[in-house]
Amino acid sequence: MKQVRPSIHNIELSIRAISETAEQMDDVVRLDIGQPDFDTPQTVKERMATIVQEDTPTYTSLWGIPELRNAIASFEGHKAPFSGEHVMVSTGGIGALFCILDTLLDHGDTAVTNDPCWSPYRMIIGATPGQHRQVSYIDDTGQVQESAIRNVIDDTTKLLILNTPENPTGRVYTKEQVQHIGEIAEDEDLYIIADEVYDQLLYDAEHCSPANLFPDRTIVVNSLSKNFAMTGWRIGWAAATNEELIHDIGKVNRATTACPNYLSQQAALIALQEAQDYTAEMRRAYHERRDLVMNHIHELGWDCISPDGAIYVFPDVGQDSWDFANNLLETEGVAVVPGEPAGPSSDTHIRICFGSASQEQLTEGFNRIERFVS
Amino acid sequence: MKQVRPSIHNIELSIRAISETAEQMDDVVRLDIGQPDFDTPQTVKERMATIVQEDTPTYTSLWGIPELRNAIASFEGHKAPFSGEHVMVSTGGIGALFCILDTLLDHGDTAVTNDPCWSPYRMIIGATPGQHRQVSYIDDTGQVQESAIRNVIDDTTKLLILNTPENPTGRVYTKEQVQHIGEIAEDEDLYIIADEVYDQLLYDAEHCSPANLFPDRTIVVNSLSKNFAMTGWRIGWAAATNEELIHDIGKVNRATTACPNYLSQQAALIALQEAQDYTAEMRRAYHERRDLVMNHIHELGWDCISPDGAIYVFPDVGQDSWDFANNLLETEGVAVVPGEPAGPSSDTHIRICFGSASQEQLTEGFNRIERFVS
Repeated sequence: MKQVRPSIHNIELSIRAISETAEQMDDVVRLDIGQPDFDTPQTVKERMATIVQEDTPTYTSLWGIPELRNAIASFEGHKAPFSGEHVMVSTGGIGALFCILDTLLDHGDTAVTNDPCWSPYRMIIGATPGQHRQVSYIDDTGQVQESAIRNVIDDTTKLLILNTPENPTGRVYTKEQVQHIGEIAEDEDLYIIADEVYDQLLYDAEHCSPANLFPDRTIVVNSLSKNFAMTGWRIGWAAATNEELIHDIGKVNRATTACPNYLSQQAALIALQEAQDYTAEMRRAYHERRDLVMNHIHELGWDCISPDGAIYVFPDVGQDSWDFANNLLETEGVAVVPGEPAGPSSDTHIRICFGSASQEQLTEGFNRIERFVS
Repeated sequence: MKQVRPSIHNIELSIRAISETAEQMDDVVRLDIGQPDFDTPQTVKERMATIVQEDTPTYTSLWGIPELRNAIASFEGHKAPFSGEHVMVSTGGIGALFCILDTLLDHGDTAVTNDPCWSPYRMIIGATPGQHRQVSYIDDTGQVQESAIRNVIDDTTKLLILNTPENPTGRVYTKEQVQHIGEIAEDEDLYIIADEVYDQLLYDAEHCSPANLFPDRTIVVNSLSKNFAMTGWRIGWAAATNEELIHDIGKVNRATTACPNYLSQQAALIALQEAQDYTAEMRRAYHERRDLVMNHIHELGWDCISPDGAIYVFPDVGQDSWDFANNLLETEGVAVVPGEPAGPSSDTHIRICFGSASQEQLTEGFNRIERFVS
């Protein structure tokens, strides 16, 4: 049989190995997958029990139900002057990312992300005709590495992704950093994909969206998955004041999914209208967990930026991340994600998720980690 | 700003123009969109009202929930010896089509479809790195056009799509036709995508899947949308005995959607296990409508194959399909789909959907069409 496309065949699903092993084991503390341990907001569940009986789920507009597009425009309105026509509802944040990247990246084009980055960016870009480049946006002092960034940009470069709050580091880019990176994008005429799927989960920090400073070239990606603990509903969106671009991105939404899920769109509308208190409750819980986790990290003496947002810490554990993660799982039953797939700077880092485990579970996990490293 | 990818930008959403105009008008008989007028099976709605309250919707395996993969393998088991590992659950049939095409088609590769074909194939292929070619598989006498098919195949050709029952024609390919087309695919070493999303909606005909005759090179695509009247739930699947291929296709599922919708997968499991009687009921209703529609078509004297499956007729109306569809909508308030986007052979055809309208609505629609053409 003829070969399948190498850029797909060569995608590694290596991180799954940890999760699959963990699923087969007893008594594992799961700090690996970014699956919140909060349930869908109760108000959404209750209302949906009626809607699922009364409504007839049909195809919707490929850009999403107009009421939901308007609600999203309003939810995102502090970032840029969005109206419903500037919004495309997608199958999760990842659906929006794919649609945008597949619209912008032609054969030979490149997209730039930070090093480290959320490793699926490489997979998503690999499923488009484009290619991935990676560079550290920020140095240890918080300075934007302008010359390094400009070095990876050339005529093939169409866009950069700015993920704030960032997975896996928990970094929330300051307004000055966003301004500086955005100016480089402007000077090089790049689109900015602002992946902001954790933008409601902030601790002590202000969120600055590139859409606020560079509205013409920014496409915001957001989702219900983390901000409303609704991963399984698979609803996200792209928002851009460039209406023609949203129109084109919608064609990929059509080509990949026909349209977003009818019932999930109803649920999304309820969440945005009625569940913002629930987000605040999660934020308080995650904040406490963040503090607990950072205390343990300090005790361990690991080098690690303190996350101002999102639900992860990304410490440098000083040894090969795969060896560390595999041995930790095997000997102590704690599942974490190896840093290596996040980029060349991360071979000795691990990602620990504090969004998926209670304070008790986190304490147990760190007790085991402390025993493991001593 | 830099140009977006031309193969996306140039995708035309022209068919939407008819639907959008129709939505703005009063008293329109809608025979355009393939949205069944049946609701989700009652048993699914009732069971889901409980599940939405009791379950916590989370990410699932990117290939889908194991119980659902097994149920699909069993549902499709008459086509080939499928097990759960041979199945990937997708976001509708279109999600499976995209994942397969994006996995197989590299830059410069081509995919062949029948002329006429379901026009979104062009859009879906346009969103991959590959390109679309079109040729009439069958002549007016039902003979497979082997030399014409071989003429469009060259070294770049990776696959052909066989859609049976076919949209827009309603053609159900005979076993001999499937055998003949499959032998060409085998001889040219092509994959066969068997798009069988209407395979439960057959009238007087037997369905033959290429998976039955050419299991090694066939990937079956199917969905709940038409067979179970569950369009809005967005669940479909790919099934292939080539397990490595399903593994690779799953990577594109991950890159485009993360995983299928949790609740829709639960609903799919209920539909496959408990709603096959409902499919039989729809089939009987569509069969009656097919007969009613063909009577009108004969009275109109239009050249048209009688559909043995699916929910469409595709008559030759003897004039430009866009003029006909636009004028018919404007003067008589009947919405149909112009044939032109279905391929070069279809400039004077229109697609009429009998799955979306009752017998009364169809009669009213044809009364208006008869007045329009006289």
